[in-house]
Amino acid sequence: MDGGERRQCDDERWMQEALRQAEQASRWGEVPVGAVVVRDGELVAAAHNWRETWRDPTAHAELVALREASRRLGTWRLADCDLFVTLEPCLMCAGAAMLARVRRIAFGAPDPKGGALISKLQALEAGRWNHHPIIAGGILADECGMILKEFFRGLRG
Amino acid sequence: MDGGERRQCDDERWMQEALRQAEQASRWGEVPVGAVVVRDGELVAAAHNWRETWRDPTAHAELVALREASRRLGTWRLADCDLFVTLEPCLMCAGAAMLARVRRIAFGAPDPKGGALISKLQALEAGRWNHHPIIAGGILADECGMILKEFFRGLRG
Repeated sequence: MDGGERRQCDDERWMQEALRQAEQASRWGEVPVGAVVVRDGELVAAAHNWRETWRDPTAHAELVALREASRRLGTWRLADCDLFVTLEPCLMCAGAAMLARVRRIAFGAPDPKGGALISKLQALEAGRWNHHPIIAGGILADECGMILKEFFRGLRG
Repeated sequence: MDGGERRQCDDERWMQEALRQAEQASRWGEVPVGAVVVRDGELVAAAHNWRETWRDPTAHAELVALREASRRLGTWRLADCDLFVTLEPCLMCAGAAMLARVRRIAFGAPDPKGGALISKLQALEAGRWNHHPIIAGGILADECGMILKEFFRGLRG
């Protein structure tokens, strides 16, 4: 494997972990979005969306995972960490990842309605803020989108 | 008093509450930003920035106050609530207020470096998202800015 293939392989491995979190969310009746925080090839934190169960507007998968990673690492600075999330982050979560100084944000499916990295807004575009995470989209996008489609189909059915 | 004067009077009253929270933050060695959530003329939640103490990148005053308000009201939908904060919200906090469906965001001092409502970005500008809180800035701006200036002067001294 060359460097690019290895990166792709790692990306898909971690997105699979995020997808497992999204599946857990479904079982709780939560919109199935999952996220993991990774450092040096090790899982630091994994979480899914908990908004309905916790009745907390801020309990998106990314925010819960970032807070858990900070708790485990004992610092709010997650500079060597990468965030993987099954759905393109919203404004709040894009902002939280930037505040936490994550190195890279990798997401699965784009979010045409709420996505704040590429779809509705390029909220973290270079030159605007002090810190700019690397952004990568489309990792296992079909699987990440499908779990959402199935969830909403189930709600309507 | 006419309606405008009454609004200004209420705004300043709640911003004073947020300023008291900011003063508390200073005592903990936290960057002094405070926030309150108000509904029907009643205080629902009050919080300040806890980032350093909690080692939590998401523990901005607004986010802590919104979560506390949701906990008290038993819902993530804060549709009848107004958020008052001493400093213009960042990207994360602007997004969180939108997700929580707050009716109005009123802030004190603008933030030329990190402000996501007017200063660096108009992240919630009308037409972009499903929900658009009313935005008001400059309430007790001098007092709200002064407490930050004094804090940073103290750090350098």
